[in-house]
Amino acid sequence: MNQPDLSESPYQRFLGLEFARYQEGLVEIGMPFREEFLRDDDSDWLHGGILSALIDIAGDYAVYSKTGGDVPTVDLRVDYLRPAKRGRLTAIARTVKVGRRVSIADVEVKDEQGQVVAIGRGLYATPTLSTSG
Amino acid sequence: MNQPDLSESPYQRFLGLEFARYQEGLVEIGMPFREEFLRDDDSDWLHGGILSALIDIAGDYAVYSKTGGDVPTVDLRVDYLRPAKRGRLTAIARTVKVGRRVSIADVEVKDEQGQVVAIGRGLYATPTLSTSG
Amino acid sequence: MNQPDLSESPYQRFLGLEFARYQEGLVEIGMPFREEFLRDDDSDWLHGGILSALIDIAGDYAVYSKTGGDVPTVDLRVDYLRPAKRGRLTAIARTVKVGRRVSIADVEVKDEQGQVVAIGRGLYATPTLSTSG
Amino acid sequence: MNQPDLSESPYQRFLGLEFARYQEGLVEIGMPFREEFLRDDDSDWLHGGILSALIDIAGDYAVYSKTGGDVPTVDLRVDYLRPAKRGRLTAIARTVKVGRRVSIADVEVKDEQGQVVAIGRGLYATPTLSTSG
Repeated sequence: MNQPDLSESPYQRFLGLEFARYQEGLVEIGMPFREEFLRDDDSDWLHGGILSALIDIAGDYAVYSKTGGDVPTVDLRVDYLRPAKRGRLTAIARTVKVGRRVSIADVEVKDEQGQVVAIGRGLYATPTLSTSG
Repeated sequence: MNQPDLSESPYQRFLGLEFARYQEGLVEIGMPFREEFLRDDDSDWLHGGILSALIDIAGDYAVYSKTGGDVPTVDLRVDYLRPAKRGRLTAIARTVKVGRRVSIADVEVKDEQGQVVAIGRGLYATPTLSTSG
Repeated sequence: MNQPDLSESPYQRFLGLEFARYQEGLVEIGMPFREEFLRDDDSDWLHGGILSALIDIAGDYAVYSKTGGDVPTVDLRVDYLRPAKRGRLTAIARTVKVGRRVSIADVEVKDEQGQVVAIGRGLYATPTLSTSG
Repeated sequence: MNQPDLSESPYQRFLGLEFARYQEGLVEIGMPFREEFLRDDDSDWLHGGILSALIDIAGDYAVYSKTGGDVPTVDLRVDYLRPAKRGRLTAIARTVKVGRRVSIADVEVKDEQGQVVAIGRGLYATPTLSTSG
Protein backbone atom coordinates (compact mmCIF):
# COMPACT_ATOMS: atom_id res chain seq x y z
CA MET A 1 0.00 0.00 0.00
CA ASN A 2 1.38 3.41 -0.89
CA GLN A 3 2.32 5.86 1.83
CA PRO A 4 -0.55 8.35 2.21
CA ASP A 5 -0.07 12.11 1.98
CA LEU A 6 -0.20 13.63 5.45
CA SER A 7 -0.59 17.14 4.06
CA GLU A 8 -4.06 16.64 2.62
CA SER A 9 -5.57 17.46 5.98
CA PRO A 10 -5.73 21.07 7.24
CA TYR A 11 -5.20 20.01 10.87
CA GLN A 12 -2.31 17.71 10.00
CA ARG A 13 -0.72 20.60 8.08
CA PHE A 14 -1.03 22.72 11.22
CA LEU A 15 0.73 19.95 13.16
CA GLY A 16 3.41 19.71 10.45
CA LEU A 17 3.40 15.92 10.47
CA GLU A 18 5.79 13.81 8.40
CA PHE A 19 6.31 10.07 8.11
CA ALA A 20 9.59 8.72 9.45
CA ARG A 21 8.53 5.16 8.71
CA TYR A 22 5.57 3.59 6.96
CA GLN A 23 5.27 -0.19 7.00
CA GLU A 24 2.30 -2.48 7.18
CA GLY A 25 1.13 -2.30 10.78
CA LEU A 26 3.93 -0.02 11.96
CA VAL A 27 4.21 3.69 11.31
CA GLU A 28 6.33 6.43 12.76
CA ILE A 29 5.34 10.08 12.49
CA GLY A 30 7.51 13.08 13.33
CA MET A 31 6.16 16.40 14.53
CA PRO A 32 8.53 19.39 14.55
CA PHE A 33 7.96 21.94 17.29
CA ARG A 34 6.01 25.13 16.76
CA GLU A 35 5.13 27.86 19.24
CA GLU A 36 1.37 27.31 18.95
CA PHE A 37 1.82 23.91 20.63
CA LEU A 38 2.73 25.40 24.01
CA ARG A 39 0.29 25.06 26.89
CA ASP A 40 1.20 28.36 28.50
CA ASP A 41 2.91 31.61 27.51
CA ASP A 42 5.39 31.20 30.35
CA SER A 43 5.97 27.50 29.86
CA ASP A 44 8.15 25.24 27.75
CA TRP A 45 5.64 22.40 28.02
CA LEU A 46 3.55 21.28 25.11
CA HIS A 47 -0.20 21.18 25.44
CA GLY A 48 -1.63 17.73 26.10
CA GLY A 49 -4.10 18.21 23.26
CA ILE A 50 -1.22 18.17 20.79
CA LEU A 51 -0.01 14.83 22.12
CA SER A 52 -3.43 13.21 22.05
CA ALA A 53 -3.93 14.38 18.46
CA LEU A 54 -0.56 12.97 17.45
CA ILE A 55 -1.43 9.65 19.13
CA ASP A 56 -4.84 9.49 17.46
CA ILE A 57 -3.36 10.19 14.03
CA ALA A 58 -0.45 7.76 14.33
CA GLY A 59 -2.76 4.95 15.45
CA ASP A 60 -5.11 5.76 12.61
CA TYR A 61 -2.37 5.43 10.00
CA ALA A 62 -1.08 2.20 11.54
CA VAL A 63 -4.52 0.69 10.96
CA TYR A 64 -4.79 2.34 7.53
CA SER A 65 -1.48 0.78 6.53
CA LYS A 66 -3.20 -2.61 6.86
CA THR A 67 -6.70 -1.83 5.65
CA GLY A 68 -6.76 1.23 3.40
CA GLY A 69 -10.06 3.06 3.27
CA ASP A 70 -11.44 5.47 5.82
CA VAL A 71 -10.55 4.62 9.43
CA PRO A 72 -12.61 6.74 11.86
CA THR A 73 -11.57 6.70 15.52
CA VAL A 74 -14.14 5.04 17.78
CA ASP A 75 -12.43 5.73 21.08
CA LEU A 76 -9.04 6.84 22.31
CA ARG A 77 -7.21 6.49 25.62
CA VAL A 78 -4.13 8.53 26.43
CA ASP A 79 -1.79 8.32 29.43
CA TYR A 80 0.53 11.27 29.96
CA LEU A 81 3.76 10.00 31.50
CA ARG A 82 5.86 13.15 31.78
CA PRO A 83 5.78 16.72 30.43
CA ALA A 84 6.79 17.09 26.78
CA LYS A 85 9.07 20.06 26.36
CA ARG A 86 9.64 22.23 23.27
CA GLY A 87 11.28 20.08 20.63
CA ARG A 88 10.43 17.48 18.02
CA LEU A 89 8.17 14.58 19.00
CA THR A 90 7.94 11.18 17.34
CA ALA A 91 4.97 8.83 17.53
CA ILE A 92 5.46 5.11 16.95
CA ALA A 93 2.21 3.22 16.29
CA ARG A 94 1.60 -0.51 15.94
CA THR A 95 -1.59 -2.41 15.17
CA VAL A 96 -2.59 -4.76 17.99
CA LYS A 97 -5.61 -6.17 16.19
CA VAL A 98 -7.25 -5.70 12.81
CA GLY A 99 -10.72 -7.12 13.19
CA ARG A 100 -13.74 -7.40 10.99
CA ARG A 101 -15.50 -4.52 12.77
CA VAL A 102 -12.88 -2.72 14.81
CA SER A 103 -9.10 -2.43 14.96
CA ILE A 104 -6.75 -1.43 17.75
CA ALA A 105 -3.44 0.41 17.65
CA ASP A 106 -0.90 1.09 20.41
CA VAL A 107 1.12 4.30 20.25
CA GLU A 108 4.14 5.69 22.06
CA VAL A 109 5.29 9.30 21.81
CA LYS A 110 8.96 10.02 22.36
CA ASP A 111 10.80 13.30 22.76
CA GLU A 112 14.15 14.20 21.22
CA GLN A 113 16.00 12.43 24.04
CA GLY A 114 14.09 9.24 23.28
CA GLN A 115 12.06 9.41 26.48
CA VAL A 116 8.47 8.22 26.27
CA VAL A 117 6.26 11.19 27.19
CA ALA A 118 2.84 9.67 26.49
CA ILE A 119 1.23 6.40 25.47
CA GLY A 120 -2.12 5.75 23.91
CA ARG A 121 -4.43 3.09 22.62
CA GLY A 122 -7.03 3.77 19.97
CA LEU A 123 -9.97 1.80 18.66
CA TYR A 124 -10.81 2.42 15.02
CA ALA A 125 -13.64 1.30 12.78
CA THR A 126 -12.28 -1.19 10.27
CA PRO A 127 -13.30 -0.18 6.74
CA THR A 128 -15.93 -2.48 5.27
CA LEU A 129 -14.42 -4.66 2.59
CA SER A 130 -15.71 -3.76 -0.79
CA THR A 131 -17.04 -6.83 -2.52
CA SER A 132 -17.65 -5.38 -5.92
CA GLY A 133 -16.44 -7.52 -8.68
CA MET B 1 -12.56 31.54 42.42
CA ASN B 2 -12.07 33.93 39.52
CA GLN B 3 -12.61 32.79 35.98
CA PRO B 4 -9.18 32.03 34.47
CA ASP B 5 -7.96 33.61 31.25
CA LEU B 6 -8.14 31.06 28.42
CA SER B 7 -5.97 33.18 26.16
CA GLU B 8 -2.76 32.82 28.20
CA SER B 9 -2.03 29.56 26.39
CA PRO B 10 -0.73 29.54 22.79
CA TYR B 11 -2.62 26.35 21.93
CA GLN B 12 -5.84 27.59 23.50
CA ARG B 13 -5.48 30.80 21.47
CA PHE B 14 -5.18 28.67 18.33
CA LEU B 15 -8.38 26.88 19.34
CA GLY B 16 -10.07 30.24 20.03
CA LEU B 17 -11.66 29.03 23.25
CA GLU B 18 -14.05 31.15 25.31
CA PHE B 19 -15.99 30.44 28.51
CA ALA B 20 -19.76 30.26 28.16
CA ARG B 21 -20.14 29.32 31.82
CA TYR B 22 -17.76 29.08 34.75
CA GLN B 23 -19.11 27.73 38.02
CA GLU B 24 -17.55 25.62 40.71
CA GLY B 25 -17.44 22.12 39.27
CA LEU B 26 -19.23 22.99 36.02
CA VAL B 27 -17.71 24.83 33.08
CA GLU B 28 -18.81 25.35 29.52
CA ILE B 29 -16.35 26.31 26.81
CA GLY B 30 -17.20 27.43 23.28
CA MET B 31 -14.94 26.87 20.28
CA PRO B 32 -15.76 28.80 17.08
CA PHE B 33 -14.95 27.03 13.84
CA ARG B 34 -11.77 27.65 11.88
CA GLU B 35 -10.53 26.02 8.69
CA GLU B 36 -7.44 24.52 10.32
CA PHE B 37 -9.73 22.22 12.33
CA LEU B 38 -10.80 20.18 9.30
CA ARG B 39 -9.62 16.62 8.97
CA ASP B 40 -9.46 16.64 5.20
CA ASP B 41 -9.32 19.23 2.42
CA ASP B 42 -12.42 17.72 0.82
CA SER B 43 -14.33 17.23 4.02
CA ASP B 44 -16.59 19.23 6.31
CA TRP B 45 -15.66 17.07 9.29
CA LEU B 46 -13.54 18.31 12.11
CA HIS B 47 -10.41 16.42 13.06
CA GLY B 48 -10.81 14.19 16.11
CA GLY B 49 -7.69 15.72 17.63
CA ILE B 50 -9.53 19.01 17.98
CA LEU B 51 -12.34 17.34 19.91
CA SER B 52 -10.04 15.44 22.25
CA ALA B 53 -8.14 18.65 23.01
CA LEU B 54 -11.38 20.50 23.74
CA ILE B 55 -12.48 17.67 26.04
CA ASP B 56 -9.14 17.59 27.86
CA ILE B 57 -9.19 21.35 28.40
CA ALA B 58 -12.81 21.56 29.53
CA GLY B 59 -12.29 18.76 32.06
CA ASP B 60 -9.15 20.45 33.27
CA TYR B 61 -10.94 23.73 33.97
CA ALA B 62 -13.82 21.94 35.67
CA VAL B 63 -11.33 20.53 38.17
CA TYR B 64 -9.47 23.85 38.36
CA SER B 65 -12.72 25.62 39.24
CA LYS B 66 -12.76 23.57 42.44
CA THR B 67 -9.06 23.36 43.27
CA GLY B 68 -7.13 26.20 41.67
CA GLY B 69 -3.45 25.51 41.07
CA ASP B 70 -1.95 23.50 38.26
CA VAL B 71 -4.05 20.53 37.12
CA PRO B 72 -2.05 18.25 34.78
CA THR B 73 -3.97 15.56 32.93
CA VAL B 74 -3.05 12.04 34.03
CA ASP B 75 -5.16 10.12 31.53
CA LEU B 76 -8.01 10.74 29.15
CA ARG B 77 -10.62 8.64 27.39
CA VAL B 78 -12.59 10.00 24.45
CA ASP B 79 -15.53 8.35 22.68
CA TYR B 80 -16.46 9.80 19.29
CA LEU B 81 -20.22 9.45 18.83
CA ARG B 82 -20.78 11.07 15.44
CA PRO B 83 -18.84 13.30 13.02
CA ALA B 84 -18.56 16.94 14.07
CA LYS B 85 -19.15 19.19 11.08
CA ARG B 86 -17.91 22.74 10.47
CA GLY B 87 -19.51 25.01 13.05
CA ARG B 88 -19.15 26.05 16.65
CA LEU B 89 -18.68 23.37 19.29
CA THR B 90 -19.45 23.61 22.98
CA ALA B 91 -17.92 21.46 25.71
CA ILE B 92 -19.75 20.99 29.03
CA ALA B 93 -17.54 19.60 31.80
CA ARG B 94 -18.47 18.48 35.32
CA THR B 95 -16.32 17.20 38.15
CA VAL B 96 -17.20 13.66 39.17
CA LYS B 97 -14.70 13.50 42.00
CA VAL B 98 -12.16 15.84 43.53
CA GLY B 99 -9.85 13.62 45.52
CA ARG B 100 -6.76 14.15 47.56
CA ARG B 101 -4.50 12.80 44.81
CA VAL B 102 -6.57 12.72 41.64
CA SER B 103 -9.76 14.24 40.30
CA ILE B 104 -12.15 13.14 37.56
CA ALA B 105 -14.22 15.18 35.12
CA ASP B 106 -16.86 14.12 32.62
CA VAL B 107 -17.23 16.10 29.41
CA GLU B 108 -19.77 16.27 26.59
CA VAL B 109 -19.17 18.09 23.31
CA LYS B 110 -22.21 19.39 21.45
CA ASP B 111 -22.52 20.86 18.00
CA GLU B 112 -24.62 23.88 16.99
CA GLN B 113 -27.72 21.71 16.76
CA GLY B 114 -27.20 20.54 20.33
CA GLN B 115 -26.27 17.02 19.31
CA VAL B 116 -23.60 15.31 21.40
CA VAL B 117 -20.70 14.52 19.05
CA ALA B 118 -18.18 13.20 21.58
CA ILE B 119 -17.87 12.39 25.27
CA GLY B 120 -14.81 12.09 27.43
CA ARG B 121 -13.59 11.31 30.91
CA GLY B 122 -10.33 12.69 32.22
CA LEU B 123 -8.27 12.01 35.29
CA TYR B 124 -6.28 14.97 36.60
CA ALA B 125 -3.68 15.36 39.32
CA THR B 126 -5.22 17.29 42.19
CA PRO B 127 -2.96 20.17 43.19
CA THR B 128 -1.28 19.66 46.53
CA LEU B 129 -2.90 21.87 49.12
CA SER B 130 -0.64 24.61 50.27
CA THR B 131 -0.58 24.70 54.02
CA SER B 132 1.20 27.95 54.50
CA GLY B 133 -0.45 30.15 56.98
CA MET C 1 -38.34 -6.77 25.08
CA ASN C 2 -38.64 -9.30 27.91
CA GLN C 3 -36.34 -9.07 30.88
CA PRO C 4 -33.54 -11.61 30.39
CA ASP C 5 -32.69 -14.27 32.95
CA LEU C 6 -29.53 -13.30 34.81
CA SER C 7 -29.12 -16.79 36.25
CA GLU C 8 -28.36 -18.51 32.94
CA SER C 9 -24.70 -17.56 33.34
CA PRO C 10 -22.43 -19.43 35.78
CA TYR C 11 -20.44 -16.30 36.61
CA GLN C 12 -23.55 -14.19 37.09
CA ARG C 13 -24.89 -16.88 39.44
CA PHE C 14 -21.67 -16.62 41.43
CA LEU C 15 -22.21 -12.85 41.62
CA GLY C 16 -25.85 -13.39 42.65
CA LEU C 17 -27.14 -10.66 40.35
CA GLU C 18 -30.79 -9.62 40.22
CA PHE C 19 -32.59 -6.91 38.25
CA ALA C 20 -33.98 -4.02 40.24
CA ARG C 21 -35.14 -2.26 37.07
CA TYR C 22 -35.23 -3.23 33.42
CA GLN C 23 -36.33 -0.59 30.93
CA GLU C 24 -35.26 0.13 27.40
CA GLY C 25 -31.88 1.79 27.72
CA LEU C 26 -31.82 1.83 31.53
CA VAL C 27 -31.20 -1.13 33.76
CA GLU C 28 -30.43 -1.48 37.43
CA ILE C 29 -28.80 -4.60 38.84
CA GLY C 30 -28.40 -5.48 42.51
CA MET C 31 -25.58 -7.61 43.87
CA PRO C 32 -25.91 -8.92 47.45
CA PHE C 33 -22.69 -9.27 49.39
CA ARG C 34 -20.84 -12.55 49.74
CA GLU C 35 -17.57 -13.31 51.48
CA GLU C 36 -15.79 -14.39 48.29
CA PHE C 37 -15.99 -10.77 47.06
CA LEU C 38 -13.51 -9.48 49.63
CA ARG C 39 -10.10 -8.34 48.51
CA ASP C 40 -8.28 -9.40 51.63
CA ASP C 41 -8.89 -11.72 54.57
CA ASP C 42 -8.39 -8.85 57.01
CA SER C 43 -10.36 -6.31 55.05
CA ASP C 44 -13.97 -5.21 54.65
CA TRP C 45 -13.29 -3.90 51.14
CA LEU C 46 -14.61 -5.58 48.06
CA HIS C 47 -12.20 -6.60 45.35
CA GLY C 48 -12.09 -4.23 42.39
CA GLY C 49 -12.57 -7.14 40.02
CA ILE C 50 -16.09 -7.61 41.39
CA LEU C 51 -16.94 -4.01 40.64
CA SER C 52 -15.56 -4.04 37.12
CA ALA C 53 -17.52 -7.23 36.38
CA LEU C 54 -20.72 -5.67 37.71
CA ILE C 55 -20.11 -2.57 35.57
CA ASP C 56 -19.40 -4.64 32.46
CA ILE C 57 -22.56 -6.72 32.95
CA ALA C 58 -24.85 -3.80 33.72
CA GLY C 59 -23.66 -1.91 30.63
CA ASP C 60 -24.11 -5.02 28.55
CA TYR C 61 -27.75 -5.43 29.60
CA ALA C 62 -28.46 -1.73 29.06
CA VAL C 63 -27.42 -2.18 25.42
CA TYR C 64 -29.21 -5.54 25.22
CA SER C 65 -32.42 -3.90 26.40
CA LYS C 66 -32.35 -1.88 23.19
CA THR C 67 -30.94 -4.36 20.71
CA GLY C 68 -31.49 -7.94 21.88
CA GLY C 69 -29.03 -10.47 20.50
CA ASP C 70 -25.52 -11.12 21.71
CA VAL C 71 -23.67 -8.00 22.93
CA PRO C 72 -19.96 -8.75 23.42
CA THR C 73 -17.91 -6.13 25.24
CA VAL C 74 -15.31 -4.46 23.01
CA ASP C 75 -13.62 -2.34 25.64
CA LEU C 76 -14.26 -1.10 29.15
CA ARG C 77 -13.00 1.70 31.34
CA VAL C 78 -13.57 1.69 35.08
CA ASP C 79 -12.79 4.47 37.56
CA TYR C 80 -12.74 3.49 41.23
CA LEU C 81 -13.94 6.45 43.29
CA ARG C 82 -13.85 5.09 46.83
CA PRO C 83 -13.56 1.69 48.52
CA ALA C 84 -16.70 -0.45 48.40
CA LYS C 85 -17.30 -2.06 51.77
CA ARG C 86 -19.17 -5.27 52.58
CA GLY C 87 -22.82 -4.78 51.71
CA ARG C 88 -25.15 -4.80 48.72
CA LEU C 89 -24.11 -2.90 45.60
CA THR C 90 -26.35 -1.55 42.86
CA ALA C 91 -25.30 -0.77 39.30
CA ILE C 92 -27.29 1.71 37.23
CA ALA C 93 -26.53 1.55 33.50
CA ARG C 94 -27.72 3.79 30.68
CA THR C 95 -27.09 3.60 26.95
CA VAL C 96 -25.27 6.63 25.62
CA LYS C 97 -25.34 5.51 22.00
CA VAL C 98 -26.70 2.55 20.09
CA GLY C 99 -24.89 2.59 16.78
CA ARG C 100 -24.88 0.41 13.72
CA ARG C 101 -21.55 -1.18 14.70
CA VAL C 102 -20.94 -0.32 18.33
CA SER C 103 -22.91 0.88 21.33
CA ILE C 104 -21.87 2.69 24.50
CA ALA C 105 -23.22 2.47 28.03
CA ASP C 106 -22.43 4.50 31.15
CA VAL C 107 -22.61 2.81 34.52
CA GLU C 108 -22.57 3.95 38.14
CA VAL C 109 -22.16 1.61 41.09
CA LYS C 110 -23.66 2.69 44.41
CA ASP C 111 -23.31 1.21 47.86
CA GLU C 112 -26.09 0.77 50.44
CA GLN C 113 -25.71 4.38 51.56
CA GLY C 114 -26.26 5.57 47.98
CA GLN C 115 -22.65 6.69 47.55
CA VAL C 116 -21.13 6.18 44.11
CA VAL C 117 -18.14 3.85 44.57
CA ALA C 118 -17.19 3.33 40.92
CA ILE C 119 -18.14 4.49 37.43
CA GLY C 120 -17.53 2.86 34.11
CA ARG C 121 -18.02 3.24 30.38
CA GLY C 122 -18.23 0.25 28.10
CA LEU C 123 -18.22 -0.17 24.35
CA TYR C 124 -20.20 -3.12 23.05
CA ALA C 125 -20.59 -4.66 19.62
CA THR C 126 -24.09 -3.94 18.35
CA PRO C 127 -25.74 -7.17 17.18
CA THR C 128 -26.12 -7.34 13.42
CA LEU C 129 -29.72 -6.91 12.43
CA SER C 130 -31.19 -10.08 11.08
CA THR C 131 -32.71 -9.43 7.69
CA SER C 132 -34.51 -12.70 7.26
CA GLY C 133 -37.99 -12.35 6.01
CA MET D 1 11.05 -7.99 47.55
CA ASN D 2 9.47 -11.29 48.54
CA GLN D 3 6.78 -12.79 46.38
CA PRO D 4 3.43 -11.99 47.99
CA ASP D 5 0.87 -14.66 48.90
CA LEU D 6 -1.97 -14.61 46.38
CA SER D 7 -4.18 -16.75 48.60
CA GLU D 8 -4.67 -14.14 51.34
CA SER D 9 -7.54 -12.64 49.36
CA PRO D 10 -10.95 -14.38 49.26
CA TYR D 11 -11.60 -13.26 45.67
CA GLN D 12 -8.14 -14.31 44.51
CA ARG D 13 -8.74 -17.72 46.12
CA PHE D 14 -11.97 -17.99 44.12
CA LEU D 15 -9.98 -17.20 40.97
CA GLY D 16 -7.33 -19.77 41.95
CA LEU D 17 -4.43 -17.50 41.00
CA GLU D 18 -0.81 -18.59 41.14
CA PHE D 19 2.42 -16.81 40.22
CA ALA D 20 4.29 -18.18 37.23
CA ARG D 21 6.89 -15.42 37.48
CA TYR D 22 7.58 -12.65 39.95
CA GLN D 23 10.30 -10.18 39.11
CA GLU D 24 10.65 -6.49 39.78
CA GLY D 25 8.33 -4.82 37.31
CA LEU D 26 7.26 -8.03 35.56
CA VAL D 27 4.87 -10.60 36.92
CA GLU D 28 3.05 -13.51 35.36
CA ILE D 29 -0.04 -15.00 36.96
CA GLY D 30 -1.76 -18.24 35.95
CA MET D 31 -5.48 -18.87 36.39
CA PRO D 32 -6.70 -22.48 36.00
CA PHE D 33 -10.18 -22.89 34.55
CA ARG D 34 -13.25 -23.43 36.69
CA GLU D 35 -16.88 -23.78 35.66
CA GLU D 36 -18.00 -20.65 37.53
CA PHE D 37 -15.98 -18.56 35.05
CA LEU D 38 -18.29 -19.30 32.12
CA ARG D 39 -20.45 -16.54 30.74
CA ASP D 40 -23.32 -18.79 29.74
CA ASP D 41 -24.56 -22.27 30.58
CA ASP D 42 -24.46 -23.23 26.90
CA SER D 43 -21.15 -21.59 26.14
CA ASP D 44 -17.46 -22.42 26.36
CA TRP D 45 -16.55 -18.74 26.64
CA LEU D 46 -15.27 -17.20 29.81
CA HIS D 47 -17.03 -14.20 31.25
CA GLY D 48 -15.34 -10.89 30.51
CA GLY D 49 -15.49 -9.99 34.19
CA ILE D 50 -13.02 -12.77 34.93
CA LEU D 51 -10.56 -11.37 32.43
CA SER D 52 -10.81 -7.81 33.67
CA ALA D 53 -10.26 -9.01 37.26
CA LEU D 54 -7.21 -11.00 36.18
CA ILE D 55 -5.84 -7.94 34.35
CA ASP D 56 -6.46 -5.66 37.32
CA ILE D 57 -4.73 -8.04 39.72
CA ALA D 58 -1.73 -8.75 37.51
CA GLY D 59 -1.14 -5.02 36.94
CA ASP D 60 -1.48 -4.41 40.65
CA TYR D 61 1.21 -6.96 41.52
CA ALA D 62 3.52 -5.63 38.80
CA VAL D 63 3.43 -2.25 40.53
CA TYR D 64 3.63 -3.86 43.97
CA SER D 65 6.78 -5.70 42.91
CA LYS D 66 8.44 -2.30 42.59
CA THR D 67 6.84 -0.38 45.42
CA GLY D 68 5.52 -2.70 48.11
CA GLY D 69 2.71 -1.30 50.22
CA ASP D 70 -0.93 -1.05 49.29
CA VAL D 71 -1.56 -0.34 45.60
CA PRO D 72 -5.24 0.54 45.00
CA THR D 73 -6.44 0.68 41.40
CA VAL D 74 -7.38 4.18 40.27
CA ASP D 75 -8.67 3.28 36.83
CA LEU D 76 -8.57 0.33 34.48
CA ARG D 77 -9.02 -0.06 30.74
CA VAL D 78 -9.57 -3.42 29.10
CA ASP D 79 -9.77 -4.35 25.42
CA TYR D 80 -11.24 -7.75 24.63
CA LEU D 81 -9.54 -9.08 21.50
CA ARG D 82 -11.12 -12.51 21.06
CA PRO D 83 -13.27 -14.89 23.13
CA ALA D 84 -11.39 -16.76 25.86
CA LYS D 85 -12.48 -20.39 25.87
CA ARG D 86 -12.42 -22.88 28.77
CA GLY D 87 -8.82 -23.50 29.74
CA ARG D 88 -6.01 -21.94 31.71
CA LEU D 89 -5.25 -18.25 31.21
CA THR D 90 -2.00 -16.45 31.88
CA ALA D 91 -1.60 -12.73 32.53
CA ILE D 92 1.72 -11.03 31.88
CA ALA D 93 2.02 -7.58 33.48
CA ARG D 94 4.75 -4.98 33.16
CA THR D 95 5.15 -1.60 34.82
CA VAL D 96 5.18 1.27 32.31
CA LYS D 97 5.75 3.96 34.90
CA VAL D 98 6.23 4.10 38.64
CA GLY D 99 5.58 7.70 39.57
CA ARG D 100 5.47 9.64 42.78
CA ARG D 101 1.66 9.70 42.81
CA VAL D 102 0.51 7.11 40.31
CA SER D 103 1.90 4.10 38.50
CA ILE D 104 0.90 2.39 35.25
CA ALA D 105 1.01 -1.26 34.26
CA ASP D 106 0.34 -2.94 30.92
CA VAL D 107 -1.14 -6.42 30.89
CA GLU D 108 -1.69 -9.11 28.28
CA VAL D 109 -3.82 -12.20 28.85
CA LYS D 110 -2.99 -15.31 26.84
CA ASP D 111 -4.85 -18.56 26.48
CA GLU D 112 -3.32 -22.06 26.46
CA GLN D 113 -2.45 -21.70 22.77
CA GLY D 114 -0.52 -18.52 23.51
CA GLN D 115 -3.03 -16.30 21.77
CA VAL D 116 -3.64 -12.89 23.32
CA VAL D 117 -7.32 -12.75 24.29
CA ALA D 118 -7.37 -9.41 26.10
CA ILE D 119 -5.11 -6.48 26.92
CA GLY D 120 -5.40 -3.92 29.64
CA ARG D 121 -3.80 -0.88 31.16
CA GLY D 122 -4.25 0.07 34.77
CA LEU D 123 -3.44 3.14 36.78
CA TYR D 124 -2.59 2.51 40.43
CA ALA D 125 -1.96 4.80 43.38
CA THR D 126 1.72 4.65 44.26
CA PRO D 127 2.14 3.97 47.97
CA THR D 128 3.40 6.98 49.87
CA LEU D 129 7.01 6.50 50.85
CA SER D 130 7.45 6.09 54.54
CA THR D 131 9.97 8.58 55.79
CA SER D 132 10.41 7.22 59.23
CA GLY D 133 13.97 7.00 60.24
